[in-house]
Amino acid sequence: MKPLLVTMGDACGIGPEIIAKAWAMGELGGAVICADMAVMRRALAAVGRSCPVASLPTPGSLDEVPPGAMPVWHPSGLAPGLVDLPLGEVQARAGAAAAACIEAAVAEVMAGRAGGLVTAPIHKEALSAAGVAYPGHTEMLQALAAKAVHLDTPPPVRMMLANDELRVVLVTIHMALRRAIESIDTPGVLQTIRLTHMAGARFGIGHPRIAVAGLNPHAGEGGLFGDEELRLIAPAIAQARAEGIDAVGPFAPDTVFMRARNAPGHPGEFDFVVAMTHDHGLIPVKYLGVAEGVNVTLGLPFVRTSPDHGTAFDLAGTGRADPSSLVCAVRLARRLSA
Amino acid sequence: MKPLLVTMGDACGIGPEIIAKAWAMGELGGAVICADMAVMRRALAAVGRSCPVASLPTPGSLDEVPPGAMPVWHPSGLAPGLVDLPLGEVQARAGAAAAACIEAAVAEVMAGRAGGLVTAPIHKEALSAAGVAYPGHTEMLQALAAKAVHLDTPPPVRMMLANDELRVVLVTIHMALRRAIESIDTPGVLQTIRLTHMAGARFGIGHPRIAVAGLNPHAGEGGLFGDEELRLIAPAIAQARAEGIDAVGPFAPDTVFMRARNAPGHPGEFDFVVAMTHDHGLIPVKYLGVAEGVNVTLGLPFVRTSPDHGTAFDLAGTGRADPSSLVCAVRLARRLSA
Repeated sequence: MKPLLVTMGDACGIGPEIIAKAWAMGELGGAVICADMAVMRRALAAVGRSCPVASLPTPGSLDEVPPGAMPVWHPSGLAPGLVDLPLGEVQARAGAAAAACIEAAVAEVMAGRAGGLVTAPIHKEALSAAGVAYPGHTEMLQALAAKAVHLDTPPPVRMMLANDELRVVLVTIHMALRRAIESIDTPGVLQTIRLTHMAGARFGIGHPRIAVAGLNPHAGEGGLFGDEELRLIAPAIAQARAEGIDAVGPFAPDTVFMRARNAPGHPGEFDFVVAMTHDHGLIPVKYLGVAEGVNVTLGLPFVRTSPDHGTAFDLAGTGRADPSSLVCAVRLARRLSA
Repeated sequence: MKPLLVTMGDACGIGPEIIAKAWAMGELGGAVICADMAVMRRALAAVGRSCPVASLPTPGSLDEVPPGAMPVWHPSGLAPGLVDLPLGEVQARAGAAAAACIEAAVAEVMAGRAGGLVTAPIHKEALSAAGVAYPGHTEMLQALAAKAVHLDTPPPVRMMLANDELRVVLVTIHMALRRAIESIDTPGVLQTIRLTHMAGARFGIGHPRIAVAGLNPHAGEGGLFGDEELRLIAPAIAQARAEGIDAVGPFAPDTVFMRARNAPGHPGEFDFVVAMTHDHGLIPVKYLGVAEGVNVTLGLPFVRTSPDHGTAFDLAGTGRADPSSLVCAVRLARRLSA
């Protein structure tokens, strides 16, 4: 099996430490850490582990790593001295190094030498300070994927948040709610439903049941509380159904997540929920705790997951950051790329 | 102690049956049912109970009801023949009777002869068919309360949804999301915070910790994803704090409910959450199931709670409707009016 690549994220944040913890817990089997060697050594010390770090010439040489050594692939593009940067601060050099690790990892996965990507958190301002043109992982991965196959337009992608109970795919994400409402259209909703349907196979669900949430209270109550459901969302669902996709809705946002919730003694009615806005979708995923949430990018030509939290600068260097979400992200990436 | 009044709601819906069930479970101690006698007899039969029904001349005569008899106050304004209406249908006469029960109950509570109101579900279309000018309970209660004290403007009210884990108060409710965003302003948010603060005392919380959720993803991320937080919400919080209210925020909508969640082993960081939109607030309250949710109207000159569901016409007459939310509503009304 091809290795997963785990990128270190921002070296001044908690990324290296949660990776070190996850590795120490035995949760990174079959994965190679794409990172600065010295930064990973510091992270191991911060979480109270002392062990050898194996420097891999390529991700493919994972099999040659001796037992008990942490497998790190240090890409050639990393500037030296990264480990000297102060922790918990926005640093242009950390932003540049985070981007270099992502670029190197995408090149490997696009070349078919890695099975998927798990990305530790990066910091938007550090990226920006480094002159990286992308506001976050998703946009960067889209652009790199397009470039790798010589496309001039990035592929349409969607953000999914998944935990043990729910899988939610978002039509709109990081923009003002006012703008999100304006940007909802039938092609965008339909694209989201299609990407969700295609993701079903990766999750081992042949014909996924997809619930589409409305935008307005009571899903518009027949037009009384807004007409986006009638004008924009219902036509997308109808088109998806005509294509053989099991999409249903639009449902009232306040009860569809409860209905989809899959818990012991409470089988979910749906496999996925398509939500119109960032917070409609993320409120229920995060309600029972963020530790178990995983971010999955749908629409890329490879598997990509990430933990559902940021760089947590206030915790960097303390060894106290919780690796649970990263562990879940690795487990899910392993499952999706199997 | 003054009795609580439980209004029957729409006679063609599940209201009378869930009341009959709750009474049979012993959950209506200290409460008088404000309803049509014959409808309540039918409801008892539908839920498989046979027992005497005591007709009270006034709610104050609860003490004279023999043990084992259901205490019903049949207001004088009810038209005859209500029990002959088919169940599970919109009927103007059922709408008129539901409104008459509410009016009679409000008159009692405003006269100081009842301690609070628990309202079983009514049907908007039945009310409308009866020529009742109000779309729902809240508007009707506002108007009746204003009339009772000879005010020409209804008092500002807010809807709270409460269960064992969360208490959420909504700034906007039944309108298109687009209109909800437009209608958010500093006075409205401030009013909501003040009403929430005042409600604290009823809940036995002297100085409640109130979290105010933002409107936009990440609460606007410093203006990058919308400026309502900076322009409208933060000034309301600042003003509330200047008045000595412990209001904090605006917080990212996707994590504030998780933080406020009060569960065994997970003490909530806040006593109340003020949410900007219907679904931001209701998604987390309903996520773990609607049965335990209670609707509380803040701002009325009396205690009013109701179950968090509708008339469920499809279940009317089957005896299968779940009384849990009504039971929770009665318990909470008893606590708030104690």
